[in-house]
Amino acid sequence: MNGKQITIVGGGLVGSLLAVFLAKRGHRINVFERRADPRKSNVYAGRSINLVVSHRGWTALKAAGVHEAVERIVVPVHARMTHDRDGKLTRLPYSIDERAIHSVSRGELNKVMLSEAEKFPNVKLHFEHRCTSVNLETGTCTFHNEATGEASAVPADVVFGSDGAPSAVRQEFMKHRFTFSQTYIEHDYKEIAFAPNADGTPRMDPHCLHIWPRRWFMMMGLANTDGGFTGTLFMPHTASAVIPEAGRPKGAGPGLARRGEATESHPAIPAFDQIKDEQDLMRFFEEHFRDATPMLPDLAEQYFRNPQSNLAIIRCSPWTYKDKVALIGDAAHAIVPFYGEGMNAGYEDCKVLNDILNEHGDDNWATVLDAYHKARKPNGDAIADLSLRNFVEMRDLVADPKFILRKKIEGRLQARHPDKWLPLYSQVKFSDIGYKTAWDEGLRHDRIMEQVLAMPGIEEKWESEEVERKALGLLEK
Amino acid sequence: MNGKQITIVGGGLVGSLLAVFLAKRGHRINVFERRADPRKSNVYAGRSINLVVSHRGWTALKAAGVHEAVERIVVPVHARMTHDRDGKLTRLPYSIDERAIHSVSRGELNKVMLSEAEKFPNVKLHFEHRCTSVNLETGTCTFHNEATGEASAVPADVVFGSDGAPSAVRQEFMKHRFTFSQTYIEHDYKEIAFAPNADGTPRMDPHCLHIWPRRWFMMMGLANTDGGFTGTLFMPHTASAVIPEAGRPKGAGPGLARRGEATESHPAIPAFDQIKDEQDLMRFFEEHFRDATPMLPDLAEQYFRNPQSNLAIIRCSPWTYKDKVALIGDAAHAIVPFYGEGMNAGYEDCKVLNDILNEHGDDNWATVLDAYHKARKPNGDAIADLSLRNFVEMRDLVADPKFILRKKIEGRLQARHPDKWLPLYSQVKFSDIGYKTAWDEGLRHDRIMEQVLAMPGIEEKWESEEVERKALGLLEK
Repeated sequence: MNGKQITIVGGGLVGSLLAVFLAKRGHRINVFERRADPRKSNVYAGRSINLVVSHRGWTALKAAGVHEAVERIVVPVHARMTHDRDGKLTRLPYSIDERAIHSVSRGELNKVMLSEAEKFPNVKLHFEHRCTSVNLETGTCTFHNEATGEASAVPADVVFGSDGAPSAVRQEFMKHRFTFSQTYIEHDYKEIAFAPNADGTPRMDPHCLHIWPRRWFMMMGLANTDGGFTGTLFMPHTASAVIPEAGRPKGAGPGLARRGEATESHPAIPAFDQIKDEQDLMRFFEEHFRDATPMLPDLAEQYFRNPQSNLAIIRCSPWTYKDKVALIGDAAHAIVPFYGEGMNAGYEDCKVLNDILNEHGDDNWATVLDAYHKARKPNGDAIADLSLRNFVEMRDLVADPKFILRKKIEGRLQARHPDKWLPLYSQVKFSDIGYKTAWDEGLRHDRIMEQVLAMPGIEEKWESEEVERKALGLLEK
Repeated sequence: MNGKQITIVGGGLVGSLLAVFLAKRGHRINVFERRADPRKSNVYAGRSINLVVSHRGWTALKAAGVHEAVERIVVPVHARMTHDRDGKLTRLPYSIDERAIHSVSRGELNKVMLSEAEKFPNVKLHFEHRCTSVNLETGTCTFHNEATGEASAVPADVVFGSDGAPSAVRQEFMKHRFTFSQTYIEHDYKEIAFAPNADGTPRMDPHCLHIWPRRWFMMMGLANTDGGFTGTLFMPHTASAVIPEAGRPKGAGPGLARRGEATESHPAIPAFDQIKDEQDLMRFFEEHFRDATPMLPDLAEQYFRNPQSNLAIIRCSPWTYKDKVALIGDAAHAIVPFYGEGMNAGYEDCKVLNDILNEHGDDNWATVLDAYHKARKPNGDAIADLSLRNFVEMRDLVADPKFILRKKIEGRLQARHPDKWLPLYSQVKFSDIGYKTAWDEGLRHDRIMEQVLAMPGIEEKWESEEVERKALGLLEK
């Protein structure tokens, strides 16, 4: 094998991990990033949702040999902690054995990953380079140097577009036979930081993902290593927004999508465009997030300073062009953040690509890219659907006694029959099972649990043999 | 009312008609067209499907007062004429009363419409002006003069994007909360011109739309005023193409989508990428279009010179931005050409906009544009679905005896009960009924006719009272 000249457009989380994988194979890598080096300037200030690393994220990081650097900057999270309007807390573990997902700041993770990539002499990072065109036939990309104003043309054997949802590389695909859709959900989001105590200790349990579920909107908080939390408020952008189909789980199954009002407009639902001044804001927080307010002394200042961002789902096909160009990560499959899987899905893309290169070698890029697209496209679609589904779960269902009962029944089934019953959440976050397989299996679980929850007296007898037999019997059908 | 400064981006069929409507209202219009003036150079050579003007197209042209100029360049078409592999002809009238649609060359129509627009002193046409940006907030557009290389910024009160499927104006919408999809069908097309006889007379009946339906592919021919025909070959772009869902009528109802193989791949289906040289081409035409070959002495030269074009469906929402910018025609709803309604849908957009301006006046653009989007968006979606459906009808069903029988039964119902039964084709082509209403009614007809065609002995008794009673009975349910 001769090392190839490879251009990676986008030096975010996925681009930097991809650079590591490809550098270890002996290729020569140029990474071009539109923004400044995050190790030198705070490019993410005020507009980041915290991320979580899940099992499949770790699998990819380990395969690339960079997991130890990441382990130093994460906070383990074992459970959801819901806050009701009166401040009452309910702890819902993610799995029966208290397995953890790991909270991490996007900015910190990006810095670590860039430094890992830069350790390889065959990786060169170029910041403030905006991609202005990609020749899909030749692999030559042009870049505008945002600092000097200069333009440059960079030839390459293979090009990867890891440049996120607004991908410039994908723009070039649009000029060809390319199926594409972008759908915005009605909810926007805004970051609000929770400061630590004066002594640097956290004000809430840092090993929980805190949720204030309010049915049509929610706030969440994820711990950082400094004792603070990154909070995020999700709410319709306008009071007149109709909660669209896109905001509901596709085929979520009975028991999840049962709240029929979801497709009607709800003038009573709070929306970003209703909060015009500090008085509106304080009234809103006092009504819905009373227990959080004392932890946010600078709330108004943050709220009116931080940008309000929107959320889109992007699906497209094909992700590759001949033997030359491939989309990866959000550039190929931008999803909503509610399963915390966007980064993990992108990391898994890199890992699967590396596996395919192991199989087909580094000189058959037409075969490799085709196999990559075939392997990942169905999983990209599935995690998009799963992420929408989890939004309903987080903002609404976690506050529903029936849903909590279902979780308990599923936990018992898993404990007693771990070979037969792995709840959907565990499949997604604590396994390497393909997203598509998990989605199909999750829909099957929905149908079974609907019948189980309809059993008379289920609230009393959920731990009985009878319930267990019923569920397993349905599973074997 | 004070006349507004209005920018129209795109001086094609829709842009020029829109200019006439708005000029008559007293506004000051600048039309910017990327291409050269078609009255001075042949910008459409070798890549145009002929168009048909249908009833709603004429309604719009009459409302604008420009129909007489168009009447001089059209050829009336009263029927489909199918050509089977042996050259056997079957004539299928479009309606029981031999109503006509009108064939017209896109280039000729564009020239006439530009001249009509230019008659107004308050309309200025600017050719070879490529739109490079639109400020959706201010209405200022920038243009690159392709002839001189100069850039200019043009302020306006209101901007219309009538710049077709690859709309530059729509690109600006993509930066905002904008739901968008583009879907390519597997079929590409190529123009092939049929020359007239030496004495200028046509070689086929000019008052028919000629179709060579071959189930998975087809050729069609529409007459021009010079005695020639514009022929178009529609065929999968590659032999490995799977005929996708997008190529099949959504909810077409039983009796239309019954051929289940449509979603499997068909290596035996001819495809553009299989025709590599003159020998392949001649063998292909000899097998499938034998009776057309003598009318195409320069077939190989045309085939390998003319471009192969692809076909996409574009859906988006919203079509308008505040009181400033609106998309119209293909820029808002690009569809496949199989119903011959693309231009008519765009013309109807202009007519409806004019009606809304009549109602709300010329100073309430936020209200006007919002009402325009609400009125037209469902109809844009419906004509996209209808056009896909008609592709199956043209390339496949017109050669099916059961389909022909259905047409006869529907014709009889229409003749005897014109108040109760208007076939879908007539609703679309010979009425102003909204596309959405027509689509819903057409699906209802499908369900009824499926039951009628399932009656024992229907081939013999289709003209009976019994069949009529059955159909009308189902209609009243």
